[in-house]
Amino acid sequence: MADAVHALGTTAPGTSGALVISVDAMGGDRGPEAVLDGVAIVAKSSPALRFIVHGPEATLAPLLAARGLSGVCTLRHAEGVVTMHDKPSAVMRNGKGTSMWSTIESVRAGEAEVAVSCGNTGALMAVSMLRLRKMPGVNRPAIASFWPSRNPSGWNVMLDMGADVKADAPDLLTYGLMGTSYARNALGLTRPRVGLLNVGTEEHKGHAELKAAYELMRAAQDAGQFEFIGFVEGNDLPSARVDVIVTDGFTGNIALKTGEGTAKLAGDLLKDALTASWLSKLGALLAMGPLKRMKARIDPRRANGGVFLGLNGTVVKSHGGADATGFAAALELAARLARSGFRAKLAARVASASVSGQDAPDIEAVSE
Amino acid sequence: MADAVHALGTTAPGTSGALVISVDAMGGDRGPEAVLDGVAIVAKSSPALRFIVHGPEATLAPLLAARGLSGVCTLRHAEGVVTMHDKPSAVMRNGKGTSMWSTIESVRAGEAEVAVSCGNTGALMAVSMLRLRKMPGVNRPAIASFWPSRNPSGWNVMLDMGADVKADAPDLLTYGLMGTSYARNALGLTRPRVGLLNVGTEEHKGHAELKAAYELMRAAQDAGQFEFIGFVEGNDLPSARVDVIVTDGFTGNIALKTGEGTAKLAGDLLKDALTASWLSKLGALLAMGPLKRMKARIDPRRANGGVFLGLNGTVVKSHGGADATGFAAALELAARLARSGFRAKLAARVASASVSGQDAPDIEAVSE
Repeated sequence: MADAVHALGTTAPGTSGALVISVDAMGGDRGPEAVLDGVAIVAKSSPALRFIVHGPEATLAPLLAARGLSGVCTLRHAEGVVTMHDKPSAVMRNGKGTSMWSTIESVRAGEAEVAVSCGNTGALMAVSMLRLRKMPGVNRPAIASFWPSRNPSGWNVMLDMGADVKADAPDLLTYGLMGTSYARNALGLTRPRVGLLNVGTEEHKGHAELKAAYELMRAAQDAGQFEFIGFVEGNDLPSARVDVIVTDGFTGNIALKTGEGTAKLAGDLLKDALTASWLSKLGALLAMGPLKRMKARIDPRRANGGVFLGLNGTVVKSHGGADATGFAAALELAARLARSGFRAKLAARVASASVSGQDAPDIEAVSE
Repeated sequence: MADAVHALGTTAPGTSGALVISVDAMGGDRGPEAVLDGVAIVAKSSPALRFIVHGPEATLAPLLAARGLSGVCTLRHAEGVVTMHDKPSAVMRNGKGTSMWSTIESVRAGEAEVAVSCGNTGALMAVSMLRLRKMPGVNRPAIASFWPSRNPSGWNVMLDMGADVKADAPDLLTYGLMGTSYARNALGLTRPRVGLLNVGTEEHKGHAELKAAYELMRAAQDAGQFEFIGFVEGNDLPSARVDVIVTDGFTGNIALKTGEGTAKLAGDLLKDALTASWLSKLGALLAMGPLKRMKARIDPRRANGGVFLGLNGTVVKSHGGADATGFAAALELAARLARSGFRAKLAARVASASVSGQDAPDIEAVSE
């Protein structure tokens, strides 16, 4: 970790050198209780972590005390709350007193290594862009998400999931490099297989921009330490032949929500099927354990945490409806990225795809 | 039906006025046996239908005889077969002697009202474009598919699923009109609800082309006899708030395959879950009936038949891997469209969105 950790506020939890996560306690559908329950889960499993928690002091102080979190959390007062209905442009202009703004500010100031929020995605990206600024060499930042797959880890990485509706060929190459760095640090893959999402796998298919990106990525794969597997199709998203799927934010967002909608429909129909008769209800009871594990596996939101890539600071966006377990998953992802020194490795990789080895997976970080 | 039905070949099945379907017996993954088994299913349930079956005579004649289909089928000899690996451009140049070409030719010549093939999609679209030509007023033809939904019918209609990777605002409006006509004739909806696929439902979201299409569709909804519900997102695809989802062929193809891939992963994981232990195996046995119905419901390929819209002739693309039941579903869709006079209604709707009522659902046609 390059950044020094400063002693903070009145409860001053920071031991010099400890990892600090900046947490937006507000803006989630389930309120600050779910967020702080999530912090409590992670504080127990990773006692060395420290947190700066942002939100209204009167609300948060008793919640922190009740959970015995005062020793590991610094409370940072911020009165305002960004809601799901606030427009990103309005938050950029008037959001300074909000918990979201304050959460990003802690990363900008170097007090925390990474920020986690379950607030409004558009506003979070807008505030992050405004305060953290784009990393040198990045034209368009991207949101990367995990996608359920048949890979040994159970996941692929896909980006951009909707930071920007457009991406030209050099942007897509940058997404490939950032996705490579993310897959190395979050999934521990040494040489990720990168695919470009298209409507067919033949080289002549798709838009001109995609064909240009194909050539750029093919040329960059050795210096960039990834294996370019060419075009992949929508049905390859859950496959075991690719680790990082690159696409523009328009297509990525449609694919993500289509996958979510399909998984939700499948889940609802399964529920209907298993309650259709007393015989099927009995059947469901007998198969309950494996069925529950299957249900968890298929929901693309389970891997809770879209990561904003390409900014001078790491921001993890938790799902707005996340419960304590879901928010804890986002915090764990944030901690893993912070431990591996992800921000610096990503910056180095984007700055120069020809310098190799700078984001080699850290065994300690990925073994947890 | 405007087109006269001519006496054909040696077995001459056509009664003047009977509906004739042109069937490509070749090119499917399961061979002509599955196709002709599908014909046999439909011939039994709709004895008035007649078929022109295209392919090598030596192969098909005994298969037709064995199924007792000689009375309702005319065999049209075509030696060549288009494979899944043939390039569309090559088929356009050299495909004249193939069963696919011959199948389309029967529609062009007015011998058959509609064509059905389970061959190579790209080649089928290329041959259809070349021989049938674009309908007046259509710049880009589209492929429309059914999508599993929570609507009473169990389906939405989505287009374009990949006929063209691009679509400008007027193309998207045309897709809306063609989708309206298709939903009226195939699903019996008087005033379909049409939505434009985007990354958010707010008016300011998405590409410039989408915003322009939004305005065109809002202005055209009354004359076009559809209800424009504005932007929809990927998770709305299976919803009950929309009947026709309009998008460009790139996005539609990615969404279709993403949905298929997600459904397939869900199915595989469910299978794993239900064979994980002897207890869950027993559970699966008890719930088998409802589970089988659920499995059928969630696969987007079940509604077997992508329809090519915007050509001077209707072409139904069956899934390449369709079995007899799947191919029968495609034939039944073709028959329904032919009975409702779909081709003429669609042409009239595209030619003039201001002339209303020309594709009103035909009660006889949609009640089956």
